[in-house]
Amino acid sequence: MAIIIAINAGSSSVKFQLFDMPSEKVITKGLIERIGLKNGLFNIVANGEKIKEIVDIPNHEVAVSLLLNKLTSLNIIHSLNEIEGIGHRVAHGGEEFTDSAVITDEVQEKIAAYSELAPLHNPANLAGIKAFKQVLPNIPTVAVFDTAFHQTMPESSFLYSLPYEYYKRYHIRKYGFHGTSHKYVSQRAAIMLGRSLSQLRLISCHLGNGASIAAIQGGKSLDTSMGFTPLAGVTMGTRSGNIDPALIPFIMEKTNKTADEVLDILNKKSGMLALSGFSSDMRDIETEAEDGNERAELALEVFANKIHKYIGSYAARMSGVDAIIFTAGIGENSDVIRERILKGLEFMGIYWDPDLNRVRGEEIFINFPHSPVKVLVIPTNEEVMIARDVIRLANIQ
Amino acid sequence: MAIIIAINAGSSSVKFQLFDMPSEKVITKGLIERIGLKNGLFNIVANGEKIKEIVDIPNHEVAVSLLLNKLTSLNIIHSLNEIEGIGHRVAHGGEEFTDSAVITDEVQEKIAAYSELAPLHNPANLAGIKAFKQVLPNIPTVAVFDTAFHQTMPESSFLYSLPYEYYKRYHIRKYGFHGTSHKYVSQRAAIMLGRSLSQLRLISCHLGNGASIAAIQGGKSLDTSMGFTPLAGVTMGTRSGNIDPALIPFIMEKTNKTADEVLDILNKKSGMLALSGFSSDMRDIETEAEDGNERAELALEVFANKIHKYIGSYAARMSGVDAIIFTAGIGENSDVIRERILKGLEFMGIYWDPDLNRVRGEEIFINFPHSPVKVLVIPTNEEVMIARDVIRLANIQ
Repeated sequence: MAIIIAINAGSSSVKFQLFDMPSEKVITKGLIERIGLKNGLFNIVANGEKIKEIVDIPNHEVAVSLLLNKLTSLNIIHSLNEIEGIGHRVAHGGEEFTDSAVITDEVQEKIAAYSELAPLHNPANLAGIKAFKQVLPNIPTVAVFDTAFHQTMPESSFLYSLPYEYYKRYHIRKYGFHGTSHKYVSQRAAIMLGRSLSQLRLISCHLGNGASIAAIQGGKSLDTSMGFTPLAGVTMGTRSGNIDPALIPFIMEKTNKTADEVLDILNKKSGMLALSGFSSDMRDIETEAEDGNERAELALEVFANKIHKYIGSYAARMSGVDAIIFTAGIGENSDVIRERILKGLEFMGIYWDPDLNRVRGEEIFINFPHSPVKVLVIPTNEEVMIARDVIRLANIQ
Repeated sequence: MAIIIAINAGSSSVKFQLFDMPSEKVITKGLIERIGLKNGLFNIVANGEKIKEIVDIPNHEVAVSLLLNKLTSLNIIHSLNEIEGIGHRVAHGGEEFTDSAVITDEVQEKIAAYSELAPLHNPANLAGIKAFKQVLPNIPTVAVFDTAFHQTMPESSFLYSLPYEYYKRYHIRKYGFHGTSHKYVSQRAAIMLGRSLSQLRLISCHLGNGASIAAIQGGKSLDTSMGFTPLAGVTMGTRSGNIDPALIPFIMEKTNKTADEVLDILNKKSGMLALSGFSSDMRDIETEAEDGNERAELALEVFANKIHKYIGSYAARMSGVDAIIFTAGIGENSDVIRERILKGLEFMGIYWDPDLNRVRGEEIFINFPHSPVKVLVIPTNEEVMIARDVIRLANIQ
């Protein structure tokens, strides 16, 4: 038995989960919020009870110290010596990391270097890594990259039709994200289907506030909808997804904004928020659409339509598909969205059961038994993937 | 019998074709090049003979006068009075023009206003219109818009996931182009299939130096790959097609270029030219790929792969497809590209015959007889569509 901590550090937050490995039992989990702001928040589940404390948390190091103190003071663990490994989610691993990696000084430097490709995420991930190193310098630590799973994509998938030196000199290519999630659900799907992953053609729809679709052939990512950054692909909560690139100079001129300001609008004020005109939250939009709000209805239609088309596109990419997977907040919970996405795909062998589709957050088949293509809802679990990679790469027995 | 001239005016060129209507017999055709440059070129086919003259052509008006003089001096027509109508291809008709239109002063002003949305094309088209008006002021003239056919797209196809006021205030939406070509081949396809257009779901692949795919349901454009401008969609000769929008600010910063300079690279130095590293011409690239050039091979793979995926995507959009159409330079002539696009689409009922696929520039079915989805090669003919619209809209008997 080994206790492993899985960490997902953002710029002002740290999400954590403690696993008892190899049983994969969750010992505790929680979220530290508002780091560096007034009224920091510390949330943890201890002995089945939700604890919430308001406390000043000036930086990530204080957040980590607080967490470790709580683990013992709340009797979740007896001593910090019980922690045998730490795993950190890291957004961008560039072309270097095709798998998770034990964090050495060299690895840490590379994560810092890739901040250029993920300026919003890698520095925050690094802050988490450094904070733990400070407090627990001798415990094996592993980085689990969001991009690693997609490094199997062939050039024909990852290369943009741009001057080739942009790829060589500036590393401009499609990277793809949500890799840990796509990998987890594809492995679960193989188990549910009772087939070897190596023989399966899967389309994984990770639909949360960020959303990406992946074509997974033989367990390997063959193509994915996100690109150089997580802005690309389908319509998301506040992100535009793909647009005509010529629109950026046009919007700059019309609104008298810089390229970075326009990019900020594409990232934070577009997507479902812009289409609906009132919210980026799918639940709000579904409720309003039911009440007859036309813009909400339009937003649902656009969102579902983009994913619907990606399913056709990726089925073509793999010359057919064995199963469609829905995961993440919207994919796991919204029967309305799943229905809109799946409607009209019978021509490619997808027959789904409206009754089974009512499920929320449960691992289940929602296709009719006779459907040649299976449809699965699988709650994602990036944290357990992190814990598994710590065990595997740090050689913990 | 009525003689109609179909005109396609570019910034430094005028393409023309004379039709005998309603028989649609081509009386003559030709191309005036290098207008405003040294050594202008006048090409015309007269009595089956190709004539080429080098002559200074300072502007479009001189080009048109030259053309009209040649028509009589070469005895192609006896008198200019025989010309009963003129049709002009116009790139952008905005949301106003859902069909071709007789050119009044008001229409001409609107075409000028839409120059903002098509700064490279509409001003050139207008120059052609004005030149003819100057010389032949009393002959009915019709504008045939590249965007008109796609005006049937629903909001869920044409709206970007951007702030809604961008659509309302700046007319930012998907317009789509090559409409006259997509319309022509869809009408021909219905005739070849012996079925009513209203019952057909077609995917039209217009593959030339510019390339666009259209989903055509019941004779109406439902979706198309080009967007606000002709830059969007698939990889083209020198155009990038869709890329992660976040790349524009990134490239600007890395290369120290303005947004317009980056846009220029996306339009003129990307696509097949950038991927292959030596040419935007598909014939050159095919030859080099055959000789083992890896970058040429990669370019072919990327190009075909994008279109292959659009076919899957648009089949999903229409809940199935009855026929795939290939047209324009590459679509009509490249069996290599057609093969790469069609390979692996058997799962959706597309079975094509490698022998029939060897055809070049001929109207033909290339599917196996038992294929549920038909595959057609149809040489496009935008000029005859222009002539037909002149007859229809100018009420010429």
